[in-house]
Amino acid sequence: MHVRMLKGQEKEVFDLAIIGGLVLTIAPYHEFIESGLILIKEGTIMDITKRELIPNTSVARDTITAEGCLIMPGLINTHTHAPMSLFRGMADDLPLMKWLKDYIFPAEAKLTEDMVYWGTLLSCGEMILSGTTTFCDGYFLEDQVAKAVKDSGMRAVLAQGVIDLPAPGIDDPKKNIKHLEKFIQTWKDTSALITPAAFCHSPYTCSENTLRDAKDITRRYNVPFLIHLSETEEEVHNLWKRYKKRATHYLRDLNVLDRDTLAVHCIWLDEDELDVLKEYEVKVSHNPESNMKLGCGVAPVPEMLQRGIIVGLGSDGAASNNNLDMFQEMDTAAKLHKVTKMDPTVLDAKSVVEMATIKGAMALNLEGIIGSLEKGKRADLIIIDMQKPHLTPCYNPYSHIVYAAKCSDVRHVIIDGKVVMKDRKLLTIDIEQVMGKVRAMRYMD
Amino acid sequence: MHVRMLKGQEKEVFDLAIIGGLVLTIAPYHEFIESGLILIKEGTIMDITKRELIPNTSVARDTITAEGCLIMPGLINTHTHAPMSLFRGMADDLPLMKWLKDYIFPAEAKLTEDMVYWGTLLSCGEMILSGTTTFCDGYFLEDQVAKAVKDSGMRAVLAQGVIDLPAPGIDDPKKNIKHLEKFIQTWKDTSALITPAAFCHSPYTCSENTLRDAKDITRRYNVPFLIHLSETEEEVHNLWKRYKKRATHYLRDLNVLDRDTLAVHCIWLDEDELDVLKEYEVKVSHNPESNMKLGCGVAPVPEMLQRGIIVGLGSDGAASNNNLDMFQEMDTAAKLHKVTKMDPTVLDAKSVVEMATIKGAMALNLEGIIGSLEKGKRADLIIIDMQKPHLTPCYNPYSHIVYAAKCSDVRHVIIDGKVVMKDRKLLTIDIEQVMGKVRAMRYMD
Repeated sequence: MHVRMLKGQEKEVFDLAIIGGLVLTIAPYHEFIESGLILIKEGTIMDITKRELIPNTSVARDTITAEGCLIMPGLINTHTHAPMSLFRGMADDLPLMKWLKDYIFPAEAKLTEDMVYWGTLLSCGEMILSGTTTFCDGYFLEDQVAKAVKDSGMRAVLAQGVIDLPAPGIDDPKKNIKHLEKFIQTWKDTSALITPAAFCHSPYTCSENTLRDAKDITRRYNVPFLIHLSETEEEVHNLWKRYKKRATHYLRDLNVLDRDTLAVHCIWLDEDELDVLKEYEVKVSHNPESNMKLGCGVAPVPEMLQRGIIVGLGSDGAASNNNLDMFQEMDTAAKLHKVTKMDPTVLDAKSVVEMATIKGAMALNLEGIIGSLEKGKRADLIIIDMQKPHLTPCYNPYSHIVYAAKCSDVRHVIIDGKVVMKDRKLLTIDIEQVMGKVRAMRYMD
Repeated sequence: MHVRMLKGQEKEVFDLAIIGGLVLTIAPYHEFIESGLILIKEGTIMDITKRELIPNTSVARDTITAEGCLIMPGLINTHTHAPMSLFRGMADDLPLMKWLKDYIFPAEAKLTEDMVYWGTLLSCGEMILSGTTTFCDGYFLEDQVAKAVKDSGMRAVLAQGVIDLPAPGIDDPKKNIKHLEKFIQTWKDTSALITPAAFCHSPYTCSENTLRDAKDITRRYNVPFLIHLSETEEEVHNLWKRYKKRATHYLRDLNVLDRDTLAVHCIWLDEDELDVLKEYEVKVSHNPESNMKLGCGVAPVPEMLQRGIIVGLGSDGAASNNNLDMFQEMDTAAKLHKVTKMDPTVLDAKSVVEMATIKGAMALNLEGIIGSLEKGKRADLIIIDMQKPHLTPCYNPYSHIVYAAKCSDVRHVIIDGKVVMKDRKLLTIDIEQVMGKVRAMRYMD
């Protein structure tokens, strides 16, 4: 790529140039750039503007032509249990407790480090193929999750699971906090793309001490704290019976809530709990498809957005979705709240795209480096082929992303400046090998 | 393809053989056939069995290898307005009446025959690419829809729109019945793949006489009668104010309901109306994504299924969905009713696959020829590539079809024995030309 050189200017060499296409920046200024040019060096967006406005001669080692495409920030999935792709479709359409007790828990009891590694790599492959560049995970044997994520080239917040029950990798629950601290120490400064974190399973499976201790550790290391909050009506009733408190109040009183806390699901919250989430700057991960499939309920997302609570979107694990497709998650989120409120103006397409990008970044406290395409941010972006029958004609890119596009329309994926998928071919993962490994791990027929 | 010949048997020459793969027949017997063989001649399934069981020497002019694939009946979309792909994403997230009056009606007023033809062909391309082989359409200028469908090679029930307002192709509403009859006469025996029909827009836009006259015509020609029924709460209230009847009772009393009537949406029905639908053998088209996006409500589908009412799935027009993807429609249907009933056992995967195949065929009175893969039925089938990360591992094909698969996983599509898509390439439609035509038709910017 060569552009006109101004006198006295040094030729600047970039690692990657993305040329042409419609850029959807999700930045508060210049939202759209038609026929754009994005220059990337050492993983950073050095310039992003109209193609014709680049004044200096720029040379890039690699170029991607994006004519007829839409370029947008990579999607951010704020809640996964990546290794659970192993259990995809193993059991569906069952009562929640039967599903957990007869299928998921016994399957998890057989998990090995190897299974967690390969299951995670399968999920990473699926996520990259569907346009996700960052995800936030909570599971056990999270060390293996981190190794797989590192190999995949994805960006992630990875949280070691904490639960007061025997769990994969932690036979004795008394060791769960120690295990957590070791995980955070191991991954704190190991990779620029990986943020370690804690994932306390829930207020009903972690004791008061466990919740306090886990939060203390995350405060000491300045890392995120994740927790499932009020996913089912039953858990809310049970907590009430035990503590005469609703879950959010219970966590607030334990001093667990702050801006580094990501509360997942948040379905059965009353108005005052929503106010508490706002007051303590707690972030929310909304998982509409999982909540629907498990028959849990509908999170009061419009009420959260009205209060200015930061809400990101999540797929949850593949066992309760059953894929990790953020395009479908966006579509479902928009439609679910419209029908719940009987109001088609609720959760418009732009708001939903923001939930899957900049709001997701904010939910993970990563908005300083990702979530929008801006000079100085890390280059996490996806290039979507818009020349498809189901995307024709195109009046409004936001509408198409939410209501019409398929994850399979994503053609190229770039994470931290590195091309991890080109022309739908994964470059960091040998997906045939991964699928073979996972198939060989089946233990139910 | 050659198999052992028994003495005295003539060699039989087939047009197409599909070899290998897992066949999901949706027939009441032998539901699954592992490593199957399907032999097709003159558009008919001549044999369908395990590959090793074919006794005679069979030669096929064309073969498709389906190893690692799932073969199932083509999907049946029971409600579309095919030309409305022209308005895809033109306006979203708006109150229903504003959306209709400020965007859809003015756009429809500008429709030409040419636009209807190309818009329909675009929809046919999208539908074939997403695994739909049959659809049921209701619109105006339906002659042009029929021409496009004929060119596409799809199977369809095509219903000329009837409304007591000026409409595309019918300036004077008084001529609407005459127009309908002419359409039915034109298409009644023109193509084996096209069934003409009547589409009365709704009880609130068609007079009593219009409804009666249109139904009479369809009875005379023995063709289906389609009608939007109780899509919004408001229309039900208005009808009540005018006639002191709920919509289903109103239609019953006009003698419009019978087994050749397909009622679309059916959201705001009371228990007695459901009983009436069952009693009169009326079929239902359920359009969950459109109903959600327009904020109309949730149809009582579990209650319908409980009564044994035949319910097919539909996408509705691309202006209110905004795609024609039946895989997503299946996923959404399953999840919507689970969350509405707060019960994950509602609408299990198998029931939903049936709604998109055999129940869809029954809704259109076509179950004698399509909807399942059985000897003697017409060869409408799709071949899905299961070797994908998001379909790995595979425990249950029904679960994967509904909860994990993407329409882009469909690799080959066969309609009436003819391969219309091979390796995701459309063979009957020049889709680049169609997209170019439709883009040139944009009249809003």
